[in-house]
Amino acid sequence: MFEAIITPAALIDETRMTRNISRMQNRMNALGVSFRPHVKTSKCIEVARRQLAQGARGITVSTLREAEHFFAAGFVDILYAACITPNKIDRALALRRRGCDLTVVVDSMAAAEAIAEKGQIEKHAFHVMIEVDTDGHRAGVKPEDRLLIDIARTVNDGGSVFAGLMTHAGSSYELNTREALQHLAEQERRLIVMAAKRLRTAGIHCKIVSVGSTPTALSTESLSGVTEVRAGVYVFFDLVMSNVGVCTAQDIALSVLTTVIGHQTDRGWAIVDAGWMAMSRDRGTQRLGRDYGYGAVCDVRCEIVEDYILATANQEHGILCRGDGTADSDIARRFPIGSLLRILPNHACATGAQFSEYNLVGSGAAPERWSRINGW
Amino acid sequence: MFEAIITPAALIDETRMTRNISRMQNRMNALGVSFRPHVKTSKCIEVARRQLAQGARGITVSTLREAEHFFAAGFVDILYAACITPNKIDRALALRRRGCDLTVVVDSMAAAEAIAEKGQIEKHAFHVMIEVDTDGHRAGVKPEDRLLIDIARTVNDGGSVFAGLMTHAGSSYELNTREALQHLAEQERRLIVMAAKRLRTAGIHCKIVSVGSTPTALSTESLSGVTEVRAGVYVFFDLVMSNVGVCTAQDIALSVLTTVIGHQTDRGWAIVDAGWMAMSRDRGTQRLGRDYGYGAVCDVRCEIVEDYILATANQEHGILCRGDGTADSDIARRFPIGSLLRILPNHACATGAQFSEYNLVGSGAAPERWSRINGW
Repeated sequence: MFEAIITPAALIDETRMTRNISRMQNRMNALGVSFRPHVKTSKCIEVARRQLAQGARGITVSTLREAEHFFAAGFVDILYAACITPNKIDRALALRRRGCDLTVVVDSMAAAEAIAEKGQIEKHAFHVMIEVDTDGHRAGVKPEDRLLIDIARTVNDGGSVFAGLMTHAGSSYELNTREALQHLAEQERRLIVMAAKRLRTAGIHCKIVSVGSTPTALSTESLSGVTEVRAGVYVFFDLVMSNVGVCTAQDIALSVLTTVIGHQTDRGWAIVDAGWMAMSRDRGTQRLGRDYGYGAVCDVRCEIVEDYILATANQEHGILCRGDGTADSDIARRFPIGSLLRILPNHACATGAQFSEYNLVGSGAAPERWSRINGW
Repeated sequence: MFEAIITPAALIDETRMTRNISRMQNRMNALGVSFRPHVKTSKCIEVARRQLAQGARGITVSTLREAEHFFAAGFVDILYAACITPNKIDRALALRRRGCDLTVVVDSMAAAEAIAEKGQIEKHAFHVMIEVDTDGHRAGVKPEDRLLIDIARTVNDGGSVFAGLMTHAGSSYELNTREALQHLAEQERRLIVMAAKRLRTAGIHCKIVSVGSTPTALSTESLSGVTEVRAGVYVFFDLVMSNVGVCTAQDIALSVLTTVIGHQTDRGWAIVDAGWMAMSRDRGTQRLGRDYGYGAVCDVRCEIVEDYILATANQEHGILCRGDGTADSDIARRFPIGSLLRILPNHACATGAQFSEYNLVGSGAAPERWSRINGW
């Protein structure tokens, strides 16, 4: 069924994706919170539609380009989850004036003042959330920082609407035990709920309390005080997530279809046309429990070929060999020239970004093509 | 001059690129060989036109998509430098029938037989080169292997044209002394010339003897017996190449324009909107003499801000701090929110691929926009 596809190509296994979407949504329903998927992973309208069809409310985006693209396709409730800068406010305003319910995020007085000022000049009430830092891995205001209250007041005083708090415990990607994940999930919850309480004590309405990362969302035992969860990579999963322990390789819905183009039989190498341009340069499993190089090798039905990995990659060449470094003298017969394989990615967000479309492998005779976007 | 550009964005410094093109072409002229730039680095028509205007003859491509794109723009003499597979021969044939002087590459009997068979069925004479392995880093037939002669005969006997040999000493990227580079360049030359001699001794015409990688091309002292050199990344250079020692940071023509979006002042971090989606996941300097994280920090005029690097990256967030790990307590004043910076990439081929266009920073008041392609 793959003969008509130009390799390398990104494939989505429909059954696995559907199962991943259901798993997360069912969990969020059981925990009693709204779920707002992060579409930065797929950047694909059809994928996001399936997430909403299963019960998700609104989407999260990582760029204004995504916001514009998804709004044009009918998605209205959008959280732009990277802190906005003065040079991006006009684009956000244009989206809101066209009817997009876009919420922006700040974590500094400089950005809050820029939003408030623009709102006053344009007589427009932006919806603004504050990013809270609950694990020290990136952006956000510390939950105990006075700045939280100052920013919220600056937003409200400027005539815009302070909508709530959001955080992302991205350091969860580096964990790999249930206990550590539950501990971080509870830290993420506890600290943002504490921050929300501080605002409310100061008389500031804080409607939304939003947390999320795929590992913490799948590990948390309580979301008391949280109103919303965001997660992205769960929709496809990947080898980093299987290392973290929140999925198995059999859950990974994204793979790269590749053709064997040559061999170095003395070294036990098969050379394939999926290099780093197809897989991305992401080496996310490099320091994890199991290092897959540039990916795990599967047959065309996406069954793992045990012991073989895409060990190294040049731009358009991947070198496939045994993961333990021993040379398979039978490599050319095992993977003949012209044969097709599928490679599971280290990081689905990075690998997906190397493509402009996905091939959905579902019940149909031929894969359906779904476009995705990139850029800013 | 950058206010109208949406960040992150890829910038080309015109002066530096022109100097890089001249440097390589002058060197090749002095060595008395043809030069065939590899356009996989820029994937940009305008860049390749400048390479040809300076004296390059033909181009090298890494994908058939590049071949189709450049042929549509008037480039006729094209070498597709990754080994072709049976499922790609029809596309190569279609290009040749439309008048493209496309040369394909093989390193196996399976591929040679597929080409010969297709040529006979379609009554078409393909132009075919054999990839030779001169440094053990990837694909190619060993120079002493009998297969070389068998493949060339299979091609010629099938009515196609065996055009010559090509090799790529890609292991040069891991070297960093003039002596080691000269040694590898001589090995690349010596082994392919030996392979050509073996073919000629067997009575097979071997017109083209093509070598190349940016480091070896810039290090070789003699190209006796070689007819053509190929190189790609020299057009932009990057931090890997400055580590290898064939350029300085002041030669790097590609940078990513980014906006400061926040700070973590206690950690000495500025957060910018160039994450790995903009820089790529390439960590090519990780194991080299000087590790730049995800890139070296420059001001808007592309002058290096000494001691600061893009230390880590999330999808749309880069974390900029001192390279020595000490916290700059003045970080928020040094790089205020909304300020613009330029980041030099580890690997120009990978960073360029994250964008669909370049902004050429030249003599004009506003940068000119040049499109590039991706995909297969």
